[in-house]
Amino acid sequence: MSDPGSFVSDVRALLGERGFTSDPELMSPWLTDWRGRFAGAAIGIASPANTQEVSAFVALCDRHDVPIVPQGGNSGMSGGATPDTAGHSVLLSLRRMDAIRAFDSDAGQIVCEAGVILQNLHEVAEKEGLRFPLTLGGKGSATVGGLISTNAGGTQVLRHGTMRAQVLGIEAVLANGEIFNGLTALKKDNRGFDLKQLLIGSEGTLGIVTAANLRLLPATEERVVAWIGLKSIGDARRLLRKLQARLPDHLEGFEVVPAHCLSAVLDHLPAAKAPLEREHAWNALVECTGTSAEIDSVRERLEEQLASAMEDGLVNDAVFAANERQAEDFWTLRDSIAPAERALGPAVQHDISVPVEKMPQFVEAAIPAVEEAFPGTSGVAFGHLGDGNVHFHVLAEPGATRREWENGTGKEISRFVHDLVTEYEGSISAEHGIGQLKRDELGRLGDPVSLSLMRSIKGALDPKGLLNPGKLVPLAPGDAKP
Amino acid sequence: MSDPGSFVSDVRALLGERGFTSDPELMSPWLTDWRGRFAGAAIGIASPANTQEVSAFVALCDRHDVPIVPQGGNSGMSGGATPDTAGHSVLLSLRRMDAIRAFDSDAGQIVCEAGVILQNLHEVAEKEGLRFPLTLGGKGSATVGGLISTNAGGTQVLRHGTMRAQVLGIEAVLANGEIFNGLTALKKDNRGFDLKQLLIGSEGTLGIVTAANLRLLPATEERVVAWIGLKSIGDARRLLRKLQARLPDHLEGFEVVPAHCLSAVLDHLPAAKAPLEREHAWNALVECTGTSAEIDSVRERLEEQLASAMEDGLVNDAVFAANERQAEDFWTLRDSIAPAERALGPAVQHDISVPVEKMPQFVEAAIPAVEEAFPGTSGVAFGHLGDGNVHFHVLAEPGATRREWENGTGKEISRFVHDLVTEYEGSISAEHGIGQLKRDELGRLGDPVSLSLMRSIKGALDPKGLLNPGKLVPLAPGDAKP
Repeated sequence: MSDPGSFVSDVRALLGERGFTSDPELMSPWLTDWRGRFAGAAIGIASPANTQEVSAFVALCDRHDVPIVPQGGNSGMSGGATPDTAGHSVLLSLRRMDAIRAFDSDAGQIVCEAGVILQNLHEVAEKEGLRFPLTLGGKGSATVGGLISTNAGGTQVLRHGTMRAQVLGIEAVLANGEIFNGLTALKKDNRGFDLKQLLIGSEGTLGIVTAANLRLLPATEERVVAWIGLKSIGDARRLLRKLQARLPDHLEGFEVVPAHCLSAVLDHLPAAKAPLEREHAWNALVECTGTSAEIDSVRERLEEQLASAMEDGLVNDAVFAANERQAEDFWTLRDSIAPAERALGPAVQHDISVPVEKMPQFVEAAIPAVEEAFPGTSGVAFGHLGDGNVHFHVLAEPGATRREWENGTGKEISRFVHDLVTEYEGSISAEHGIGQLKRDELGRLGDPVSLSLMRSIKGALDPKGLLNPGKLVPLAPGDAKP
Repeated sequence: MSDPGSFVSDVRALLGERGFTSDPELMSPWLTDWRGRFAGAAIGIASPANTQEVSAFVALCDRHDVPIVPQGGNSGMSGGATPDTAGHSVLLSLRRMDAIRAFDSDAGQIVCEAGVILQNLHEVAEKEGLRFPLTLGGKGSATVGGLISTNAGGTQVLRHGTMRAQVLGIEAVLANGEIFNGLTALKKDNRGFDLKQLLIGSEGTLGIVTAANLRLLPATEERVVAWIGLKSIGDARRLLRKLQARLPDHLEGFEVVPAHCLSAVLDHLPAAKAPLEREHAWNALVECTGTSAEIDSVRERLEEQLASAMEDGLVNDAVFAANERQAEDFWTLRDSIAPAERALGPAVQHDISVPVEKMPQFVEAAIPAVEEAFPGTSGVAFGHLGDGNVHFHVLAEPGATRREWENGTGKEISRFVHDLVTEYEGSISAEHGIGQLKRDELGRLGDPVSLSLMRSIKGALDPKGLLNPGKLVPLAPGDAKP
């Protein structure tokens, strides 16, 4: 790096008063991730107002050899937007770029700058009778740029795909400051490598996403929600396949909840009520949607499928939400599992996926394997069965101290779980990304050919390694940090 | 390149009698593309039996510095699988690798080797009540590997997307002979750059696709087909939007046909009959599909939409196919446009796309512009309105000689059309790829930042430039061929 003072004065000259700060108090909230697991230091925070400023700023960093850590809403789960502790890098906040550049409600397309917050995007779309078909817990802070850089998931992936499926076009600033303009939405375009796809999910290590053209769908008009009792997770998967075959265009959610999780939730939420009278080893929460013209036929077909599944012994019992209020109550049970489990004591959580067809087998093998290897712990698995994405929590043995356990045995358990997932050809990061949290694990367990390809591409697009160093791309064997 | 004799004897030792030939007679059909526009020469044709052999063969080529031209069914449209005339390269045929490695009809997944022919894939899927939702004219020869390398399109893109959307996983051999194994289908996987997406559509310039995991859908049970008369292509687009909003999960095809094309087809096929009594400036062929449980409601909704469109003056007239036979007849009219136009005399065809919302404007501007710039010619546009993918044909002035005109004025017209498409932010290759046919045009008109990114990636993944040289990736300014 060249003289930091000259870099800072160049940045101030470029971005002006609103565009740069090195005030420790103003910087502090953005140097720690929201869960408080990672903390770093930086020369300052740059907040450019538009793509041209991002471009000039990145070119300046390139000239001064200053590493850049891009950040959106700072609500990531893997420390991907937190700088390291050395303090040599500069934080690049995209939050100020929150304009909606174009909105074609007829074509179902919206061009958002990187700093647009997901919830605002939802609201803008809804006003025109449309919807953006991706949502997640952090929607009040997560930005379009962050969602793209991490290829975010959420609860609608079963039918609509991850963020990758929503992106029609992208604008990004490359390591040398050049602007890649791929915003135009073309349904068919075979002019070579799909650079947009390469940038999505690259966590700011190949370029800085500055804007995107996103697809919007007609608003969902009606939904049918059912709670179903089952004997096993294998039966849940068979039911899922049946519904996918008969209601392919209407099945929007299929979540599985084991008895243990449901009872933890009922203890945690005193006002909540179990949807079914008896306890079942597994529960499925199913949601189908349709236009108001379709919904009666959708409900009928779902009823038929569940009736025939009960006759076949695949389903124990089922109940439909009688109204929107009850539908919300069913979803509240599902959404309260994480806090309810946390209230039970120290635990480690895993964001993992396996091929959908192997998920029942994985869950049935992994829980006893963990409990045997770490006596006193207990494993629970729940979540998006339709995506092969299981939330796998392991609770500490009674009496364990949270911080100590989570940093000791907890880490050992995570490595054990990641080994198992790898055996099942699964992913150690289903939706939260790699960031700094899992980079070493990716290096340990990733396919060496893939890792070497990733390093080649990183080297070609960011030869000085200034874009989000220390994140995502594992070190080559024998290389020193970062 | 090292001594060709020693290379050939090494390849023979590796692949055996069935795996290599340099017999000119056996080689001849594969050294010219099927349309006879490109012809080349090669040291020989290698036909490995499995991925391990491909890997060892590519490593051997790397050691001997021998360029590789991969080939599937040799039915490409852009000369991407034809070697140059120097004769220093080796043709790598994937046709022998035609095994289906795994078929999970329950999960809707099939793992095919690169040489599996599209029509065989359709038949295997149909036997299990499933379908592979991509089809095109060359299905009797096109292979899975070729379809992936060119990101093929076809007639079902409106609803199901291009080949890219069908690929769940990929296996490929890289320039150094290493095997990239990304076959496992994970619905959610955020472990870094999406290498699969980078390989799809890269025309064999970054790696050799050896196998893929493809998605299968439940077989279509029923369809409703209608032929619609309209005043303008703008009205056709408005109708398309209306149907997309009301029948989002059922609209499978929306093709537009101008009066000129329909009357050329009726002249060309004496037994054919116009679906509507009167002539309309534009026609739309619409197809909706659904399960047998859904189809009545789909038909009713389509009838309602067309009735209200007629009331609003958006649609002149419309007729539903009374049975499967009549539905086939409607599609025959659409599929006969290309041969009917060809029978009229010399012509140049363009595989182009523009943003869907700009397509009416483009068609209305481009036809008079071409006819004015090249007096005596006449332009026609038809095709996949829903994809923004227009087949734009320009017919020669009366009396022109085919070969001479196509190589002279025809080429000038193509450059003129490509300039226009670029003004509309469209693509000079919607579905046929770049190959050797359009590489110079891509170099002339492509965004310099994108081209430079492509060259960086190509350099990183294939530093010696041995994978399909002279195809797809335009030369850097000032560089010599290839």
